[in-house]
Amino acid sequence: MEQHFHGQLESLKSQLLSMASLVEEALHRSIQSLVERDQDLALLVLNSDDAINMAEIKIDDFCLKLLALYQPAAIDLRFITSALKINSDLERMGDQAVNIAERTIELLKEPQLKPLIDLPRMAELSQKMVKDSLDAFVRKDPELAHDVCRRDDEVDALNDQVFRELLTYMMQDPHTITRAVHLLLVGRHLERIADHATNIAEDVIYMVQAKTIKHRFDVRRIDV
Amino acid sequence: MEQHFHGQLESLKSQLLSMASLVEEALHRSIQSLVERDQDLALLVLNSDDAINMAEIKIDDFCLKLLALYQPAAIDLRFITSALKINSDLERMGDQAVNIAERTIELLKEPQLKPLIDLPRMAELSQKMVKDSLDAFVRKDPELAHDVCRRDDEVDALNDQVFRELLTYMMQDPHTITRAVHLLLVGRHLERIADHATNIAEDVIYMVQAKTIKHRFDVRRIDV
Repeated sequence: MEQHFHGQLESLKSQLLSMASLVEEALHRSIQSLVERDQDLALLVLNSDDAINMAEIKIDDFCLKLLALYQPAAIDLRFITSALKINSDLERMGDQAVNIAERTIELLKEPQLKPLIDLPRMAELSQKMVKDSLDAFVRKDPELAHDVCRRDDEVDALNDQVFRELLTYMMQDPHTITRAVHLLLVGRHLERIADHATNIAEDVIYMVQAKTIKHRFDVRRIDV
Repeated sequence: MEQHFHGQLESLKSQLLSMASLVEEALHRSIQSLVERDQDLALLVLNSDDAINMAEIKIDDFCLKLLALYQPAAIDLRFITSALKINSDLERMGDQAVNIAERTIELLKEPQLKPLIDLPRMAELSQKMVKDSLDAFVRKDPELAHDVCRRDDEVDALNDQVFRELLTYMMQDPHTITRAVHLLLVGRHLERIADHATNIAEDVIYMVQAKTIKHRFDVRRIDV
């Protein structure tokens, strides 16, 4: 039973990683579609969202099955409840990739406003945060998770910069307004992706250390 | 044991409802601060966020304790895992209220752009969705939950309208750009609040009927 249970936990881990791969691919493609102005790639992101949604439902069901069948305790219990939360964050990142792809499709209706520099940089940082938060989960590595949380500020700062720059464009030339607003919202989507990665990293710290760092409060131990 | 467990589930329910009250109050105040241009009220929203964050941590801990101690099955298990998810959605709604209050503070630096009509209407619809999603949870009422899911489209449509109107303002007069962008982002925050209420409603349907309707309502649309 014990051995079988640990096999099931491994299966849960690999299901989450497969889902994470789908999400990372969608993010990568959505940004690539934006930068390279590639409508087909944007449409591919829209069409791949169903697979992510299906994966979320399957993983949720599997978590509930594990909780009901094995009645786990301590770190195994926290592993499964963390998996439930990570699953939900991954699915919402997939939604953000869809949002970015939809903005790309809108942006393709007009000529390019400007070569994109900060947004791809933000995307790179966010994607690395997603990858590292998942690595931290798999390796049960709280140091890496703390590092992910720290990097969230960098993405926020970059987003502020993008925001201010795009406001300047709009004020100088009203013809840029629609495009600038779409780009500004791409910045918001990327910032939210980094937030989701931060949520995952916080869950990892909770799972491993049974302490909560959410909301940057004093660390507290809990008894489960 | 059984009786004690059901007492604990009631306690979980009332903890979630107290948290929901805090969040509903924050939402209400954030919108009121925007409409009445009341900086003190906006600051109150910022200051009340800690209480919401603390409530989230406490409820998460309580859910894990219940899972570990009572090893619940079937609907009780789904009740607790749904509570975990609802808890997280409530906390993120609190964050959106903070975002709205922050935009209010920015908007108060300049004269009012226009009397607000559609945004308060969106806020009203979103708040009703939040209230009804929680009612559906308490009453285990899948009909009401389905109704909440349906209303999400209405909020999205109103947000599209707000978005288009604000673009027009910006194009006609570049002096309005900063204010219009902040208002446009308030629209996004309200739309996200409605999304969280929809998530809660979907969790209620799952909890009661053990079936997932997630993503069934997904309609491809530009998310502004």
